[in-house]
Amino acid sequence: MSGTSLDGIDVAICDFYPINGRLRFELLAYDEVPYPSKIKNKIQDVINNKVTIKDISQLNFALAELYSNALIQLCEKKSVSLKSINSVGVHGQTVWHNPEEEYFCGMNVASTLQLGSISAMKEKLGINVIGDFRSADVALGGQGAPLVPIFDWEFIRSENENIACVNIGGISNITYLPQNCRIADILGFDCGPGNVLLDLSAKKYFDKSCDFNGDIAKTGNLIYELLEKLMGLPFIKCDIPKSTGRELFNEQFLSEMQIHNYPPEDQLRTLTEFTAAALYKHIIELPSHIDKIYISGGGSKNSFLMERIRSILPQRIKITDTSAIGINSDAKEAICFSYLAYLHNQNLPGNVPSVTGSDKRAILGIS
Amino acid sequence: MSGTSLDGIDVAICDFYPINGRLRFELLAYDEVPYPSKIKNKIQDVINNKVTIKDISQLNFALAELYSNALIQLCEKKSVSLKSINSVGVHGQTVWHNPEEEYFCGMNVASTLQLGSISAMKEKLGINVIGDFRSADVALGGQGAPLVPIFDWEFIRSENENIACVNIGGISNITYLPQNCRIADILGFDCGPGNVLLDLSAKKYFDKSCDFNGDIAKTGNLIYELLEKLMGLPFIKCDIPKSTGRELFNEQFLSEMQIHNYPPEDQLRTLTEFTAAALYKHIIELPSHIDKIYISGGGSKNSFLMERIRSILPQRIKITDTSAIGINSDAKEAICFSYLAYLHNQNLPGNVPSVTGSDKRAILGIS
Repeated sequence: MSGTSLDGIDVAICDFYPINGRLRFELLAYDEVPYPSKIKNKIQDVINNKVTIKDISQLNFALAELYSNALIQLCEKKSVSLKSINSVGVHGQTVWHNPEEEYFCGMNVASTLQLGSISAMKEKLGINVIGDFRSADVALGGQGAPLVPIFDWEFIRSENENIACVNIGGISNITYLPQNCRIADILGFDCGPGNVLLDLSAKKYFDKSCDFNGDIAKTGNLIYELLEKLMGLPFIKCDIPKSTGRELFNEQFLSEMQIHNYPPEDQLRTLTEFTAAALYKHIIELPSHIDKIYISGGGSKNSFLMERIRSILPQRIKITDTSAIGINSDAKEAICFSYLAYLHNQNLPGNVPSVTGSDKRAILGIS
Repeated sequence: MSGTSLDGIDVAICDFYPINGRLRFELLAYDEVPYPSKIKNKIQDVINNKVTIKDISQLNFALAELYSNALIQLCEKKSVSLKSINSVGVHGQTVWHNPEEEYFCGMNVASTLQLGSISAMKEKLGINVIGDFRSADVALGGQGAPLVPIFDWEFIRSENENIACVNIGGISNITYLPQNCRIADILGFDCGPGNVLLDLSAKKYFDKSCDFNGDIAKTGNLIYELLEKLMGLPFIKCDIPKSTGRELFNEQFLSEMQIHNYPPEDQLRTLTEFTAAALYKHIIELPSHIDKIYISGGGSKNSFLMERIRSILPQRIKITDTSAIGINSDAKEAICFSYLAYLHNQNLPGNVPSVTGSDKRAILGIS
């Protein structure tokens, strides 16, 4: 898994097996491998359109090599035999995600694009590799995201509690699992930025990759007029299903919001509140009261952000890390894509139309 | 199939079956569907780096739709049931091909990139779709091209004649099949431009999509100093295996060769001779005397080009169209990619390491 936060490659080696008619998994090994800075910069250039077709082609193969090496190194580190791995699921690096149809060369086209050549990984690893998980759903009129809800449903649903699973990566997303829910009852959507804007500001003003623990944000003042403007964004206000990414929440966005007029600490304070407030708004608007939130992703390590979330959400909601139920919260998204690869191999659909808005369920990925 | 000439989409519906231990095929239907002009222009923009990441993502899905529609329309036209088709092999549109390793972000990277989303085609057609045939070979250190030689070997090899199969598309390529040849004996390579430079000049000076029958070229004078310069190009002189494309032979190339200093008719005359002379040079340098050349591709319809080829090649070589042996010469490349899809489904390798220079044989394509 390599997400919109561009912090690198998450590798999870998982074993899936049924117990008493329910699927369970064991996380055999997990590691996070940062992108080399040159690659990270190149991905940012591609996303920001400082790009040649050669760059895109070369990046596609370079990422395949980095993803393959990340797995090979984890296998060596944990003495897992590469040959023992049945299949690899690879998300790829999203460089464009545009699930709404737009006019293009006389046609109406929606699209998504992840880089990281599946063919090159197969040859490098000598293992079956499954990737391009989002395209089938987009081709069926869906948002192609989020794809985590089927995983949350399989492993986190409860018979007697209304649960929300919240992942705070570059972007924040929510899976809603009402008690005793069937697949058609699942809701899931992106609810706003996670760390993406915080990371951009931390880099720009403090040359830090992130605002660790919210240490900078907590020294700033909350700018209410700015928060109001952010919460008034069409993306925040529009109905679900919805998904977003760096196409919206990027450097240009911060400029357009004239955020740079405020002191840097105040910017970070307000952006932190924006992440929390966007989550609050969408949790409150779910069809039933939530009993429990299982939280995961890098944002869950930001103690100030977590404090803000706990303070504005209704106190009756229990907020807990997924590790409490045996799901390593750092590894969760990576585990999810190994589960999507498992579903592909079983010829089982991975998308949830009530979540993505697609016409029907589909077997996700090509290999 | 959609080649570097950008003239559009070739669709072949083929039935493969063994007879007496040799594989044979029947061409059930064939059609050529031109690209809509807006799409053709957009592809040219992408190749010429007038490009955004959004364009590439949208083009990837737009091409999937056009390829799918081309097949659906052919099925309707010829009353072939779409459901009767087992698998679709799709080449995709090459927008970058760079099989030699180059420095990229601290790594050595070779790559190739074809657009036309496989996942989107699968959902649109409801059929298994196999594509991305070149990447595995490039990942194994090969040129990723040409891929036609395995097809030529399977269907054209002879027990008692040395055969060259020549396809003149945007680029010209040669497959060398010595008598009684095994797979390891095959040679195959691009030998220079086919129609790509002719088409560029016909468009620029005469606003024609091609120099039909060489009617313009035959009115011009051959500029020997220019021909000599063209034949002295490193690509023409370098050893096989080799492959090329619009990355080399493009508008910029013509400017750098200062070809625009000459009268347009003389340019076309000399470029026509260049295509013929590059073919001559490589046929003569093959390891054994050639008995027969089977010719195919759009260039085979250019009677003046064919006259020039016949006139400069040794008269003992019999030059004949592949249709003489039951292979529709227009459809040949499209048939070849349905054969590569067949090989993929049979778990059989499609590349020829003696041709592409790759480390080993590989099952080509992902689906």
